Amino acid sequence: MTTSVHILGFSGSLRQKSLNTGLLHAASELLPAKTTLEIVHLGEIPLYDQDLLDAQGFPAAVEHFRQRILAADALLIATPEYNYSITGVLKNAIDWASRPGPDKKLPLDDKPLGIMGASPGLYGTARAQYHLRQIAVFTNMHPINKPEVMVPQAMQKFSDGRLTDEQSREFVRQHVAELVQWTLRLRGTADRQIGG
Amino acid sequence: MTTSVHILGFSGSLRQKSLNTGLLHAASELLPAKTTLEIVHLGEIPLYDQDLLDAQGFPAAVEHFRQRILAADALLIATPEYNYSITGVLKNAIDWASRPGPDKKLPLDDKPLGIMGASPGLYGTARAQYHLRQIAVFTNMHPINKPEVMVPQAMQKFSDGRLTDEQSREFVRQHVAELVQWTLRLRGTADRQIGG
Amino acid sequence: MTTSVHILGFSGSLRQKSLNTGLLHAASELLPAKTTLEIVHLGEIPLYDQDLLDAQGFPAAVEHFRQRILAADALLIATPEYNYSITGVLKNAIDWASRPGPDKKLPLDDKPLGIMGASPGLYGTARAQYHLRQIAVFTNMHPINKPEVMVPQAMQKFSDGRLTDEQSREFVRQHVAELVQWTLRLRGTADRQIGG
Amino acid sequence: MTTSVHILGFSGSLRQKSLNTGLLHAASELLPAKTTLEIVHLGEIPLYDQDLLDAQGFPAAVEHFRQRILAADALLIATPEYNYSITGVLKNAIDWASRPGPDKKLPLDDKPLGIMGASPGLYGTARAQYHLRQIAVFTNMHPINKPEVMVPQAMQKFSDGRLTDEQSREFVRQHVAELVQWTLRLRGTADRQIGG
Repeated sequence: MTTSVHILGFSGSLRQKSLNTGLLHAASELLPAKTTLEIVHLGEIPLYDQDLLDAQGFPAAVEHFRQRILAADALLIATPEYNYSITGVLKNAIDWASRPGPDKKLPLDDKPLGIMGASPGLYGTARAQYHLRQIAVFTNMHPINKPEVMVPQAMQKFSDGRLTDEQSREFVRQHVAELVQWTLRLRGTADRQIGG
Repeated sequence: MTTSVHILGFSGSLRQKSLNTGLLHAASELLPAKTTLEIVHLGEIPLYDQDLLDAQGFPAAVEHFRQRILAADALLIATPEYNYSITGVLKNAIDWASRPGPDKKLPLDDKPLGIMGASPGLYGTARAQYHLRQIAVFTNMHPINKPEVMVPQAMQKFSDGRLTDEQSREFVRQHVAELVQWTLRLRGTADRQIGG
Repeated sequence: MTTSVHILGFSGSLRQKSLNTGLLHAASELLPAKTTLEIVHLGEIPLYDQDLLDAQGFPAAVEHFRQRILAADALLIATPEYNYSITGVLKNAIDWASRPGPDKKLPLDDKPLGIMGASPGLYGTARAQYHLRQIAVFTNMHPINKPEVMVPQAMQKFSDGRLTDEQSREFVRQHVAELVQWTLRLRGTADRQIGG
Repeated sequence: MTTSVHILGFSGSLRQKSLNTGLLHAASELLPAKTTLEIVHLGEIPLYDQDLLDAQGFPAAVEHFRQRILAADALLIATPEYNYSITGVLKNAIDWASRPGPDKKLPLDDKPLGIMGASPGLYGTARAQYHLRQIAVFTNMHPINKPEVMVPQAMQKFSDGRLTDEQSREFVRQHVAELVQWTLRLRGTADRQIGG
């Protein structure tokens, strides 16, 4: 089946009950047909250190992360906003993933990208998401533009870690649907009615 | 001929001998096959004023700009960096072009976008270009990621308004070639060898 | 009276009933003691064109703007967010004001800066304000950090052009008070209890 | 001695021979009178995890980092640019340092800040530094505007880890001198000739 899309999702927060990991779980409930979403956890990835890389190659958790990215058709990142930017945890994982391996592969290169964010505050990670978009330029990922998923005042929109707010769920659903269409369009197999 | 690409270019500087307008002229000399580049000047566009828009509709220069954008397959913007951002002249033109007309059309929507910049200083408009990329998110344009065209210390690279530096010309050539491939890829007619 | 502070305010919107101009009017009602606020309109300033500047010097409206800035102790900018950035109108005015005149003076240099924004949408100009802060680096202005004034869903918070929402008015009041303290601190005459 | 200034420096790179750590060493050789520079290493700080924080409080390396910041009059950060932003290592350290402790203290709050960067490429960390400046807004640090220290093509400017390029050393010297003056100005003890 050539039109199926496999998405890899990861969250910039390591908390067990992370709202942003919760967004990924919501996405997994709201996938379009012929789409799969796999979630990878970033907690085992050590701080990036080039001396370590030069001496020992990629740590096991990094190599696992790289391989999961390489196997995916598209990426879906959910990130909190810490200090008006993405989290150090997320940036650190991207710093590792951006490096070519002995296989010369750049896992992030040419990947369609979805971006979501939830925050307790009013602005729903708006500031963080544009930093991530700038990072996507260098790493040559292709983020979708719309709909942006910024879930402000998220404490009221989750219950026991599950996204329950219907409007937010609809944004997540549309975002993933658009990511899938964008992935097919870049692949050259998009339904001709949609897209440009 | 369905695989031809028509590009509309404009410069963020109004100077007659603008380096950035010079980049557009270089691009017009370095086009790939089946590609045309039309250059539009922004000097007649008035300051954006919504009262004016509500009372009189689009001024003639704005309507002309909108129509030229609508007729193009892709956009190519060359912008100086003024005060670490794009110029007011360029932003003002985009502010007008982003508005739906009585025809309900959003001229910028879904347009592939190339971005170039030249500056006398060391950093070649790097700071301005990321502001333009953020603007492209809202307006739903699709900028190419690579190669970025940032021409630093541009005074030495132009002669009588013509870009003469060979390395810079090669970057411009590659940038336009990539913009054309990206346009075809988004249209669904890209050569299958290239792209993702 | 050495501890008085004179603020110059301007708005990035030319609309008569601009919400952002309305924020400036609210500020003028909420000034701390010994503080004055003068508002200047940007509508007469032409598009920046260096050829024009070289041939004729500063246009009258620009020279007026420069002089009002030079006479001020601090600046207060209210800006809408158009296309995820500040308006072209505002950027154009800053582009003119950033240029040294025959007097060699840089009007914006070393000016304390307050930033406010109102928008009909959910995010209250958050995206635009960081572009303005980057512009402030090159022009060497000193923006205050807190409290940020971002008035989302502003249509419900104004009545006949006047800011009526009490919480928003309180943010404006605090913002101007902080701008005054910051100005005094940078001048070296701040009340020692406050500040660092 | 009330006019002395103690600066804490840290580098966004963990490499032993990091160019950016090298910039800090250069700064320590180029300090103005009555100024001290202490350098702290970020390599022991674990990935930020709020569950860990809630369960065990600050890890020892984080608490040490917090205390060194609290004891400093100003901060000096040297950061590489990874993927068009600051490093994950640096962001992670800031994410920890931005949290209030049981002592209710916000170590970063109201700190004067210097920013430097070196990179092998052409643009000398220009893109990363503006992300750091946005982070400084939320954390309420006060970065100096000029001179910016961006050392491009840094491989040729260091020898055995030591910054040898005279022009770059002069920028570092001026940057630290300005940081000290800015610190005194914010403290209210600046020499009245300088500053505003």
